[in-house]
Amino acid sequence: MNDTPAATAGPPETVRRVTVIGAGVIGASWTALFLARGLTVTVNDPLPDVERVVHDQLRQAVPGLRALGLPTAGLEGNLRFEADLDRAVADADAVQENGPERLDFKQELFGRIEQAARPDTLLLSSTSGIRATEIAQAMKHPGRLVIGHPFNPPHLVPLVEVVPGERTDPDTVRRAVAFYTALGKKPQVLRREVPGFVANRLQAALFREAVDLVVKGVVTEQELDEIVTSSIGPRWAVAGPFRSFHLGGGPGGLPHFLQHLGPGLEGMWRDLGTPKPDQATVQLLSEQADFGASVEELESARDEAQIKVMRALGLA
Amino acid sequence: MNDTPAATAGPPETVRRVTVIGAGVIGASWTALFLARGLTVTVNDPLPDVERVVHDQLRQAVPGLRALGLPTAGLEGNLRFEADLDRAVADADAVQENGPERLDFKQELFGRIEQAARPDTLLLSSTSGIRATEIAQAMKHPGRLVIGHPFNPPHLVPLVEVVPGERTDPDTVRRAVAFYTALGKKPQVLRREVPGFVANRLQAALFREAVDLVVKGVVTEQELDEIVTSSIGPRWAVAGPFRSFHLGGGPGGLPHFLQHLGPGLEGMWRDLGTPKPDQATVQLLSEQADFGASVEELESARDEAQIKVMRALGLA
Repeated sequence: MNDTPAATAGPPETVRRVTVIGAGVIGASWTALFLARGLTVTVNDPLPDVERVVHDQLRQAVPGLRALGLPTAGLEGNLRFEADLDRAVADADAVQENGPERLDFKQELFGRIEQAARPDTLLLSSTSGIRATEIAQAMKHPGRLVIGHPFNPPHLVPLVEVVPGERTDPDTVRRAVAFYTALGKKPQVLRREVPGFVANRLQAALFREAVDLVVKGVVTEQELDEIVTSSIGPRWAVAGPFRSFHLGGGPGGLPHFLQHLGPGLEGMWRDLGTPKPDQATVQLLSEQADFGASVEELESARDEAQIKVMRALGLA
Repeated sequence: MNDTPAATAGPPETVRRVTVIGAGVIGASWTALFLARGLTVTVNDPLPDVERVVHDQLRQAVPGLRALGLPTAGLEGNLRFEADLDRAVADADAVQENGPERLDFKQELFGRIEQAARPDTLLLSSTSGIRATEIAQAMKHPGRLVIGHPFNPPHLVPLVEVVPGERTDPDTVRRAVAFYTALGKKPQVLRREVPGFVANRLQAALFREAVDLVVKGVVTEQELDEIVTSSIGPRWAVAGPFRSFHLGGGPGGLPHFLQHLGPGLEGMWRDLGTPKPDQATVQLLSEQADFGASVEELESARDEAQIKVMRALGLA
């Protein structure tokens, strides 16, 4: 995506009101970001105590938003809740959907949304696993829907995978990219739909080998994590895998690297593990899962470090 | 490695003189780090213009060393060259070997080194692919040898994989860990020898899927790199894969994550690609390998960003 429009200070002219459907962890994080970027947000979720849940999540997001240099005072002034779906989307410029990962649910949901929303409302799904082609199957205007899959938490991590379905209108893709870019995100349009999209597939590939190395007793979970955070993690924060190997090939770059190390690479590929996440594996991995603090404490520490890294890289 | 000794200002009492065997990119980078940490370094390499090559590499390492807060003035005052192997290792406290990746070569080399060096000299190999058990097969005292495999470039990236062979003396491992820790590195002892060790296996696993996604036309190399540097790269710079999924499982942590997402994970594992690095693949990947600047310029930019990230994380 070298043709991504340059970031601007606020959201594009056309998006001022966003409706967030589903106020789980992802939906609440989107809500925090949208509010901090000056948008008006309507949250739609059938949960009885949704207001309390969202307020709690917003409070947790404040340190991160502040560290990103975003305003955090009076955020909730632009927030409202609307349990009726039709009313919730009626005046939205964009809808960001974060419902359960069930095809039938999302099909029915977007069938209703396209009728209740204006014809020009941008329709976005945060799904990590279902293709836009499938979700849009029953829509009258499938060209309006595109996947906007964030990396958790969306208010901190820059990536949004924008994944068009077979019938998504190119203009919908363009508008989604402009929308996310204006929010300070790094949208990346995929050229083909593939299960799990790109980031989660890469993550799964590395994790499979990581699980195998722990199962084989080469390292513990904590030791493997230390290896990653002191080598390939910081490396891939500054240069992706292709650029990294391009720089590992001397003046001849990636072509030289592939010609000379290709055979060795294939040998290593053949030797990679294929563990099964069966009960014995799950038990072993669960037994080792002691990271020395509560999940909440670890999460705060991670987000704090995440922001430091992003600031160092000019991503925040 | 929670029992790694705390870092100290300089090298441990016992290591003041290091002999670097092989002055390629890795050997020269080790040389730069050893000199900047106040050690006396003897370089042994049969290359006729080895002095010029090492001086050039040292000059290139200076900005990085300076950014790490290390002294860079008069480094070469503690550097000497000795083409004769026996003389080069005669008074060394430690030997860091970076020769060609051939078993017969390394076997013969360490056979000679153990005779020419003092009995207490720490013997370390930077090999990325050969097990200490094999290299030490012909040694009289195989307990003296341990792998100290850095991540390139060693003067910048913290990780050193310390990999004992079957007959490596535990005291050799302890001394290697103390040596690298005192140099400001993050040594990680592996519990078992495995081909490629850990970091390169994880890298190969992710790269296999990356190649497959480019071959399938889902993204270009540059787009995939952008996805990595805006999501899993910065994430793994601050939390390794196990800790990351521990934090993706809510209050129940990794056990909850594995119980609930294990089946989905296995489905994704089954769906991962198994590309062949054949000529067609190499050609496609080579054609896309345009990163908009020379390898040298890209390398400087990478190292500069690398240092910023490491400083942000307190790794430098």
